[in-house]
Amino acid sequence: MRFDEAYSGKVFIMSRPSQEEAKVVIYGMPMDWTVSFRPGSRFGPNRIREASLGLEEYSPYMDKHLEEVSYFDAGDIPLPFGNPQRSLDMIQDYVQGLLNQGKFPLGLGGEHLVSWPIFQAMYEKYNDMAIIHIDAHADLREEYEGEPLSHSTPIRKACGLIGPENVYSFGIRSGMREEFQYAKDSGMHMSKYEVVRPLREVLPKLAGRNVYVTIDIDVLDPAFAPGTGTAEAGGITSKELLEAIQLIAQSDINVIGADLVEVAPIYDPTEQTVIAASKFIREMLLGWIK
Amino acid sequence: MRFDEAYSGKVFIMSRPSQEEAKVVIYGMPMDWTVSFRPGSRFGPNRIREASLGLEEYSPYMDKHLEEVSYFDAGDIPLPFGNPQRSLDMIQDYVQGLLNQGKFPLGLGGEHLVSWPIFQAMYEKYNDMAIIHIDAHADLREEYEGEPLSHSTPIRKACGLIGPENVYSFGIRSGMREEFQYAKDSGMHMSKYEVVRPLREVLPKLAGRNVYVTIDIDVLDPAFAPGTGTAEAGGITSKELLEAIQLIAQSDINVIGADLVEVAPIYDPTEQTVIAASKFIREMLLGWIK
Amino acid sequence: MRFDEAYSGKVFIMSRPSQEEAKVVIYGMPMDWTVSFRPGSRFGPNRIREASLGLEEYSPYMDKHLEEVSYFDAGDIPLPFGNPQRSLDMIQDYVQGLLNQGKFPLGLGGEHLVSWPIFQAMYEKYNDMAIIHIDAHADLREEYEGEPLSHSTPIRKACGLIGPENVYSFGIRSGMREEFQYAKDSGMHMSKYEVVRPLREVLPKLAGRNVYVTIDIDVLDPAFAPGTGTAEAGGITSKELLEAIQLIAQSDINVIGADLVEVAPIYDPTEQTVIAASKFIREMLLGWIK
Amino acid sequence: MRFDEAYSGKVFIMSRPSQEEAKVVIYGMPMDWTVSFRPGSRFGPNRIREASLGLEEYSPYMDKHLEEVSYFDAGDIPLPFGNPQRSLDMIQDYVQGLLNQGKFPLGLGGEHLVSWPIFQAMYEKYNDMAIIHIDAHADLREEYEGEPLSHSTPIRKACGLIGPENVYSFGIRSGMREEFQYAKDSGMHMSKYEVVRPLREVLPKLAGRNVYVTIDIDVLDPAFAPGTGTAEAGGITSKELLEAIQLIAQSDINVIGADLVEVAPIYDPTEQTVIAASKFIREMLLGWIK
Amino acid sequence: MRFDEAYSGKVFIMSRPSQEEAKVVIYGMPMDWTVSFRPGSRFGPNRIREASLGLEEYSPYMDKHLEEVSYFDAGDIPLPFGNPQRSLDMIQDYVQGLLNQGKFPLGLGGEHLVSWPIFQAMYEKYNDMAIIHIDAHADLREEYEGEPLSHSTPIRKACGLIGPENVYSFGIRSGMREEFQYAKDSGMHMSKYEVVRPLREVLPKLAGRNVYVTIDIDVLDPAFAPGTGTAEAGGITSKELLEAIQLIAQSDINVIGADLVEVAPIYDPTEQTVIAASKFIREMLLGWIK
Amino acid sequence: MRFDEAYSGKVFIMSRPSQEEAKVVIYGMPMDWTVSFRPGSRFGPNRIREASLGLEEYSPYMDKHLEEVSYFDAGDIPLPFGNPQRSLDMIQDYVQGLLNQGKFPLGLGGEHLVSWPIFQAMYEKYNDMAIIHIDAHADLREEYEGEPLSHSTPIRKACGLIGPENVYSFGIRSGMREEFQYAKDSGMHMSKYEVVRPLREVLPKLAGRNVYVTIDIDVLDPAFAPGTGTAEAGGITSKELLEAIQLIAQSDINVIGADLVEVAPIYDPTEQTVIAASKFIREMLLGWIK
Repeated sequence: MRFDEAYSGKVFIMSRPSQEEAKVVIYGMPMDWTVSFRPGSRFGPNRIREASLGLEEYSPYMDKHLEEVSYFDAGDIPLPFGNPQRSLDMIQDYVQGLLNQGKFPLGLGGEHLVSWPIFQAMYEKYNDMAIIHIDAHADLREEYEGEPLSHSTPIRKACGLIGPENVYSFGIRSGMREEFQYAKDSGMHMSKYEVVRPLREVLPKLAGRNVYVTIDIDVLDPAFAPGTGTAEAGGITSKELLEAIQLIAQSDINVIGADLVEVAPIYDPTEQTVIAASKFIREMLLGWIK
Repeated sequence: MRFDEAYSGKVFIMSRPSQEEAKVVIYGMPMDWTVSFRPGSRFGPNRIREASLGLEEYSPYMDKHLEEVSYFDAGDIPLPFGNPQRSLDMIQDYVQGLLNQGKFPLGLGGEHLVSWPIFQAMYEKYNDMAIIHIDAHADLREEYEGEPLSHSTPIRKACGLIGPENVYSFGIRSGMREEFQYAKDSGMHMSKYEVVRPLREVLPKLAGRNVYVTIDIDVLDPAFAPGTGTAEAGGITSKELLEAIQLIAQSDINVIGADLVEVAPIYDPTEQTVIAASKFIREMLLGWIK
Repeated sequence: MRFDEAYSGKVFIMSRPSQEEAKVVIYGMPMDWTVSFRPGSRFGPNRIREASLGLEEYSPYMDKHLEEVSYFDAGDIPLPFGNPQRSLDMIQDYVQGLLNQGKFPLGLGGEHLVSWPIFQAMYEKYNDMAIIHIDAHADLREEYEGEPLSHSTPIRKACGLIGPENVYSFGIRSGMREEFQYAKDSGMHMSKYEVVRPLREVLPKLAGRNVYVTIDIDVLDPAFAPGTGTAEAGGITSKELLEAIQLIAQSDINVIGADLVEVAPIYDPTEQTVIAASKFIREMLLGWIK
Repeated sequence: MRFDEAYSGKVFIMSRPSQEEAKVVIYGMPMDWTVSFRPGSRFGPNRIREASLGLEEYSPYMDKHLEEVSYFDAGDIPLPFGNPQRSLDMIQDYVQGLLNQGKFPLGLGGEHLVSWPIFQAMYEKYNDMAIIHIDAHADLREEYEGEPLSHSTPIRKACGLIGPENVYSFGIRSGMREEFQYAKDSGMHMSKYEVVRPLREVLPKLAGRNVYVTIDIDVLDPAFAPGTGTAEAGGITSKELLEAIQLIAQSDINVIGADLVEVAPIYDPTEQTVIAASKFIREMLLGWIK
Repeated sequence: MRFDEAYSGKVFIMSRPSQEEAKVVIYGMPMDWTVSFRPGSRFGPNRIREASLGLEEYSPYMDKHLEEVSYFDAGDIPLPFGNPQRSLDMIQDYVQGLLNQGKFPLGLGGEHLVSWPIFQAMYEKYNDMAIIHIDAHADLREEYEGEPLSHSTPIRKACGLIGPENVYSFGIRSGMREEFQYAKDSGMHMSKYEVVRPLREVLPKLAGRNVYVTIDIDVLDPAFAPGTGTAEAGGITSKELLEAIQLIAQSDINVIGADLVEVAPIYDPTEQTVIAASKFIREMLLGWIK
Repeated sequence: MRFDEAYSGKVFIMSRPSQEEAKVVIYGMPMDWTVSFRPGSRFGPNRIREASLGLEEYSPYMDKHLEEVSYFDAGDIPLPFGNPQRSLDMIQDYVQGLLNQGKFPLGLGGEHLVSWPIFQAMYEKYNDMAIIHIDAHADLREEYEGEPLSHSTPIRKACGLIGPENVYSFGIRSGMREEFQYAKDSGMHMSKYEVVRPLREVLPKLAGRNVYVTIDIDVLDPAFAPGTGTAEAGGITSKELLEAIQLIAQSDINVIGADLVEVAPIYDPTEQTVIAASKFIREMLLGWIK
């Protein structure tokens, strides 16, 4: 007999015992080797699981209980330290596997570069997909100081893959001039500083479409999420991000997968970042899985 | 000769030297033995006292100085570790004693369960009393995993004691489905997520009544109060709580006692939680004692 | 498919997948409700598991590899918050269950009071047992400020149960005068301040006997284990505790069960306490299971 | 050959290699010896420099790149520990030297008292100057417990020097009754609690004037800047301070010098305070240097 | 009624209620304004008091109970921030007052410069006195970067006052070449690196003499006392300092006063420094007061 | 004019202003991308520099002053994030450049893998060289989970390069069985657990030889150096490492270069690790440069 793992914070609270019966698979990507400033997001997934212990299973925002969604927390993909290319390949393979089984992939980062192989796997299945990208950083670089595999590049790569017109960025408040220029010229959507108001405008246009949503925790002001590698002052509040998640839940888009990345617990001894992150995951589970 | 205790942060700043001459008695309840997640609020009262050192004695919000209010900081009730029932009995006895002496009880927690014996003592004297409850959590459980004495239950117990129609909750953003259902069915007042706006509506209805006010510090977003056991993302700001305190001060209700609970300093190395808490206590002293 | 849990620090590294095939069962007792000073040991077991990730599976001290020992990490017993008696009953039942299945119980605390129900369960099976107790504190109180269920009492209770002449304490550097007097008068063994030297003398006398070993992490100086509730300056080093574990491994006693208690991670942001604790558990597994 | 210092966080990012070619000089004042509560701002300047490593050189707020502004980071003035008078003299001499060379002085504190000698040096050159003061505290004391050299006094001294009618304070939420009275009686401008709205009103009145701007980081709520000595709950957000900096940039005033003071990194293990501070400095460089 | 202050950590545990009946007076000197590196020792005295809560009142080292010594904790002297000279004058006056009343002064620092006025007050009464100085730093500077009032100078000043032949330093592992040269040339005693062994040799020579003992917590290795301003690697253990205190207790010297300085709690989130310091104070009380 | 950089902790204290006149070059290698557990050593070099501010320039151990050694702190090599191979190439090139100029390279890590390219550069010049390796970990792996570039491999690579008989490891207390087997079979020297005693035996055998010394800070017990990625309980003290450095200084070997690696400041909020590390660097400068 093993005690309930959810009780110990070993898996996200109320995870089903097996993958077979689950609609959603939560998986961790403990990778942080290309970050340019402060590493540590490799420990993000497990601390989010642990913090989920403190959550209520019921959400008054969604008026829904976690037992109404069937999900399985598969743990972390065992990525090879310091080898970005092999790590990305493993993530892509894994997500492809999930999609083949008809699962909804809900990923926990790890640095933002992990979203790139997910985009590739998703696009193979959903070639009409759009991406909603909520972040402080544009992530539109072609490379970072000579390295094409960097956590500053995934959205640029996404534009190349699915077409910039299918990429919608919100909350952006940091980037190179070239990235903001690209955003303007390429035809992608970029909302600076804010998330809720522009999302309210954009969501109706995306009605009926298959959309993957990637959230970088640093879209929050460091006051609300100090536990991240490249914290950027001037962000939104937790309340606003909760509202954004709810807007998506109430919209007519079809969310096909999602991730939450860049949680680096070591920089936050108060643990508020993982506490907030686990609540966002609960809301995504309750609101986005139909 | 002993140096002024307020100078050393041993008592709340500007505490009078003896209880006799004081109208208000500040007392600590260093109990945290029934909490379900992170313990540590037993150290709350003393750290709030210590942080009061950094306060100005004058408040521009109230345009009033602490010397205009006479209060005495009695220290912490010596509660027995790990024995909830005996602890609650001691608190109830103590508050009864204060009320018999005609004092205004201003309690510092400790976990929220400490409010339950206070409610009982208050109700004995004020059998027409109402309760204003400002909190992230509904605290409307009948028990917590089989334990009727839990920090998730005091408001439910209060409803039983004084009638749900006399209980007013604000800022609630977490609880079981059953708790939210109870709030709806029972006739109590519950405002979700917000405090200031609904308080502005409710206060006129309470005009002239005797009201006890219990504030759980976790009504604040963890950004503003990371030092608490069950931090819950999506809360209000310190500015909003200051405004709520001021609204109550300006209203026509008769505040008969108050507490501030669930400050757990260990989770906040920045000390901002106790710094904010000591300011709230100053404002309560200046605004609520007539 | 779930990724290897040991990889994610969900279970102690290299735990077998099922209890059936395992000789040893590792189990957590996340209880800290009777502690007199700083609570938080409820999070000890899980952080020790997580830290085990950073361990080598091979020990040069024992020249042995974890794959040579078959053990299963069962997770934490879901103890009821704030109810000491019910918690102790659950622990006793659980350990009895393990003993019935012929398992070696290896417990992770939690406060030291958790050892008391274990002693009771062990004694039922091994009525000739002795106890080796390694700790900074005598834990020989009859009660703590009126409470008989306190983390200051388990060794006194043990003396009552199995006879003081079968209890051997080492490293003791804190206690009431009455506790030291009792140690002298009762016929139990107590070595003050030191562990290695006296253990070397005592172990031969215990040759051939069934011995339960309980280690309180605070026997270490706070320099080596700051993450504990009642840290006491003047303790031994990690090197010395490793040597003590090795001495027991090389002796002719029959270790029938063991625990490591009072690890409270929140007080140690450096994580060195859980890192050291996980190494001690590895050495106990490698050296004490024959 | 020495590696680029900006790369190592040794100087503010993109500092020019020599002072000669630079229009602006960034200099640190590592003084904290008169503070009344928590010292530590002596380490502010260097940690702000280090945090500048994580900044983008381009600002989407100003649509400008740091290479468009020529500045030199001169390091910290070697102030004598524990000697306020000699420290102030050294600062005044140093700033006079900068002004003689036609440089724009951009100072990093240190406690707020460091602004007093700067005011004196500036006033010698600009005898028609005004001061914009953004702070939680009035800093209008004549002395602090008998000491005229205290970090609670610089704005009062400024009123004496340049006339209260030329001093504009914003965001004030703490002070003695006498300070608020002085603000009312003296003819200076004081906006309580808020910064952005009143600044929008005041700036047009200051059009064309030479203005020195002093910002105390504690105008931010402790949620956004916990790393400061006398944190005061109820403040503004980072977003609001960024907006205030932008308003000044877009106004018709002539900024003649500026400082950012009271960053005390030790109280903020999350590093968010220095991260925010370095962004404010970037915005001041990009927006205020014409 | 006020609850027992010792219960709340407001005074050192078991302090008598009034100074009159007490033989020893414990007093704090919250001064840190001349320190050259990391300030913060102003908070040392109060945190030592608070940590005393976790102590047993009985010491197995001394086989003595705190109730056998009569002492009164007077709190902290209200020193003026940033004014070293006035602070030193206040300390000297205060200690003179204690000596006039026949009290044994037991001081808690604060920076080490606070010992200088104590030496002066003691010498007035005991003009044959010797000093035992236990420290990592020689503190033999004549000035520090031009400032004669610095925490690097008190032992040099002591040599001037009572004659170098009456000054005995132990554990010294840091200083300028000139300081070590002075130690050699002047006739004072200096033991480098070690404390216990040389103390064992020196104490018999001091038999029968009046001796003041000043202990700088940084004589401990930072592993044992990280909470100090100028931590210096390579120090002694807590066990060794406990042994040194015991050696002095068992010797034939007459201890006439003592202090423990440079505890700066902010640098030690584990709290082990104040925990150790409070134990040292207990041992000094139990062993040195005859 | 720029203020003295050493004053601000921007370079190691007393660094000469230019490389030309210096015999030794201190350089940082901010790389941590292959570490298997906790990253963060990229910030080690700069925090060691900053901590050097708190050091005395004179050493009583060596009776020597830093002005007697001419060294230049060149800052950090700008290594590309997440690209191990390119990083190693840059380090090798850089060290070759230093050797061509006749400089003594003194490197600051970064993870231990950075020593591998240094070994290669050194060996090209000194083909008779030996290596002294002081560490908790054997670092004798051929690869780590499939990656040949890992911080667990540099000493194995060194054995391949210069012959195992020229490699001397001390203090080793962690590794795979295969690593310990290799140490036995290959003819290299490995001392387990201890450093000082075996070093005393080995150094005479190395008399007259060219020796490179690499020190991994984790040879210290985590009590003395918690700020490291793979802390391992049971290590040596700071005092012992200081003694080891002194033994090497007094020996007849010719130290040709050295490094100190794996300092990861984020895991040590007490800063004791960087404080100790800066002292070790001072001692290496004073004792090993002839």
